Amino acid sequence: MPYYIGDVIKDEKHLIARTPEKFRESGIDVRIDTRVEEVDPAAGRVRLAGGEQLPYDILVLGTGAKPVRPGIPGEDRPGVFTLRKLSDAVRIKGWLGEVPCRKAIIVGAGFIGMEMSEALRNLGIETRVVQRGKLPVNRWDPEFSQTVLAELERHAVGFAAEVEVRAVEEGRRSRLRLVTNRGEDEADMILMAVGIRPDTDLARAMGLPLGTNGAIRVDFSQRAQREGVYAVGDCAEAYHRVSKSWVNIPLGDIANKQGRVAGRNVGGGSAVFPGIVGSQCFKVFDLEVASTGLDEREAAASGFHPVSVLIWGNAIAGSMPGSKKLGLKLVADRATGRLLGGQAAGEAGAVSRINTLACALWAGLSVDELAWLDLAYSPPVAAAWDPIHIAAQQLRRKL
Amino acid sequence: MPYYIGDVIKDEKHLIARTPEKFRESGIDVRIDTRVEEVDPAAGRVRLAGGEQLPYDILVLGTGAKPVRPGIPGEDRPGVFTLRKLSDAVRIKGWLGEVPCRKAIIVGAGFIGMEMSEALRNLGIETRVVQRGKLPVNRWDPEFSQTVLAELERHAVGFAAEVEVRAVEEGRRSRLRLVTNRGEDEADMILMAVGIRPDTDLARAMGLPLGTNGAIRVDFSQRAQREGVYAVGDCAEAYHRVSKSWVNIPLGDIANKQGRVAGRNVGGGSAVFPGIVGSQCFKVFDLEVASTGLDEREAAASGFHPVSVLIWGNAIAGSMPGSKKLGLKLVADRATGRLLGGQAAGEAGAVSRINTLACALWAGLSVDELAWLDLAYSPPVAAAWDPIHIAAQQLRRKL
Repeated sequence: MPYYIGDVIKDEKHLIARTPEKFRESGIDVRIDTRVEEVDPAAGRVRLAGGEQLPYDILVLGTGAKPVRPGIPGEDRPGVFTLRKLSDAVRIKGWLGEVPCRKAIIVGAGFIGMEMSEALRNLGIETRVVQRGKLPVNRWDPEFSQTVLAELERHAVGFAAEVEVRAVEEGRRSRLRLVTNRGEDEADMILMAVGIRPDTDLARAMGLPLGTNGAIRVDFSQRAQREGVYAVGDCAEAYHRVSKSWVNIPLGDIANKQGRVAGRNVGGGSAVFPGIVGSQCFKVFDLEVASTGLDEREAAASGFHPVSVLIWGNAIAGSMPGSKKLGLKLVADRATGRLLGGQAAGEAGAVSRINTLACALWAGLSVDELAWLDLAYSPPVAAAWDPIHIAAQQLRRKL
Repeated sequence: MPYYIGDVIKDEKHLIARTPEKFRESGIDVRIDTRVEEVDPAAGRVRLAGGEQLPYDILVLGTGAKPVRPGIPGEDRPGVFTLRKLSDAVRIKGWLGEVPCRKAIIVGAGFIGMEMSEALRNLGIETRVVQRGKLPVNRWDPEFSQTVLAELERHAVGFAAEVEVRAVEEGRRSRLRLVTNRGEDEADMILMAVGIRPDTDLARAMGLPLGTNGAIRVDFSQRAQREGVYAVGDCAEAYHRVSKSWVNIPLGDIANKQGRVAGRNVGGGSAVFPGIVGSQCFKVFDLEVASTGLDEREAAASGFHPVSVLIWGNAIAGSMPGSKKLGLKLVADRATGRLLGGQAAGEAGAVSRINTLACALWAGLSVDELAWLDLAYSPPVAAAWDPIHIAAQQLRRKL
């Protein structure tokens, strides 16, 4: 009988489609809130927390990722959270309902930090983001990070740069006090959003080879480097079609696709996961921010010769009411003229452009081809020369 | 001295960037509101309406397209319009300002008919679209045409199908009466929006070869089939990268690109227009409608073996508030597995998907590749499985 082991929270909004009982009727033994303590790959057996042993012929690891904690005193105090799983979100909501929460501090200015600053601010909570670096979302060009910072400020989210957290203590006016290299600040809730890393405890204990990125090495069929063992999602590597290297980019859509590939192969079919190009995006208040492919640093590290351009254009035709500014950056390789990456930020249209560029990266298009791409044109939805064309035409001249 | 001859309207909103005087200072003789009566290609001379002759070494034809008129009695009555040029729009606005316009009839349900139905309705004018076919925008799948029709109805735009216009007469309650095979209807304004065709009067008189589509034959450098003569825009052909044939798709973005290619070649540089994939879109009220590539009929006519799928998904993740339904159709070739075309309709996200598909068509991607494309995922802007993935996964199974 196939087993599914994992934690699935059920509440009225987030029901799993079929209950464990229903799965059992279909011949699948679903164990929720169950911990696997150890895998014995030689015997083909997993040992559960209660001591029960389950045999397997095929093992699929989807252990995901764990939030990184800063490792400071007091980080496990009530009111200090990380946000990774649905259960974390439920716990945070519970806390906000229980404690009169007037003020929140978010440590870290990545995706989670940005999305939570919006969520908390929309609840009327005074929110402050503190960050080790100088600007939020440092994967993006500093010009776009500045745009994000302006959006935070426009919505009265505080931002403090170059902050190193030292400790969490009991607060006086609020529940908690965050001690940093730049003094102290109090809040009723602190979210530690300083990143995640692949959860490979079980994999390492079984002796599965990991990549330098810390994720489980897999092939295009999602097979780990041991007979009968597969790995998918945030705990596994994925092939990056632009850098032509194996990377770990923990995102839900990649996990979904890898799960489908592994499932088909496990089920006796055949499927290959053809890789990724590094597309990602987030929304913070009224701003869409997206990127795909490599930035200059990654491009140089992969042996390319990056040249880039960053332009501000209009998401829709300039003649239309409500015309929206859109920033677009393209990175290309001087040696081959190939597109290597793109970034975008704007009130609308950023993800749309990045998805078109993601397809261009997938297919290995040159900047010259991008400059003439046949995009759908109509003034209410686009200009005759799209920001993609304008940026590509400019970048051609720099190659 | 280079000449530019054409009609450019100046008003406070639509100034040409530099006046004819300014152009003259830069050594370009710009003649506006000037008609070329004849071209003498042997002598290299154009004759203007006033009789003046201008010599040329290089001639660029950008004569555009003309609206088709139904050819019925009374179609030139005041209050009956076609809409092609800025001057047409100015005339229509003038009429609406002058005449108390309570009711308008639009003949034709293509791009212009749809866009004008929105514009007129937003002015509070009772608007009715009459159409020879059964559904509006018949380039799209009937299911999407139905969606467009529902959008017209939602905004109280009347629609009558299978109507053939017979005559325009003087009205009794309104200014005009439209006589059709289905009876009569009165209105204060009638817009004839039954299509356009390339304006090739000059080209034909010079003996330039035209394609079967009626447009001037050109090569990838925009050269017509006569030494020193170029043609660009709606009067010219463009190479369709999917059907691998020369077509005439009169759209402003194609004209812009061809103009740039011709300009670079005329100016002594070198540029090639790499062709189009047939992307197009329009907006009608709250609906975005877009398409790219070939539909089944065109695909079959080009020798492909079309298979298609039409799905309804969400433009953004289903878990997010305001989730919006998006319809997506994909057409692929059974013999090669290649994507041949796509269509989309929805409140948001239709153009975004079509542009991604346009890039896929440009690069010749297969449906199998589309099914795994790495699109930017984040619940507020997309689902983990985008409608593109869902449609492509379904279509793979039909191939």
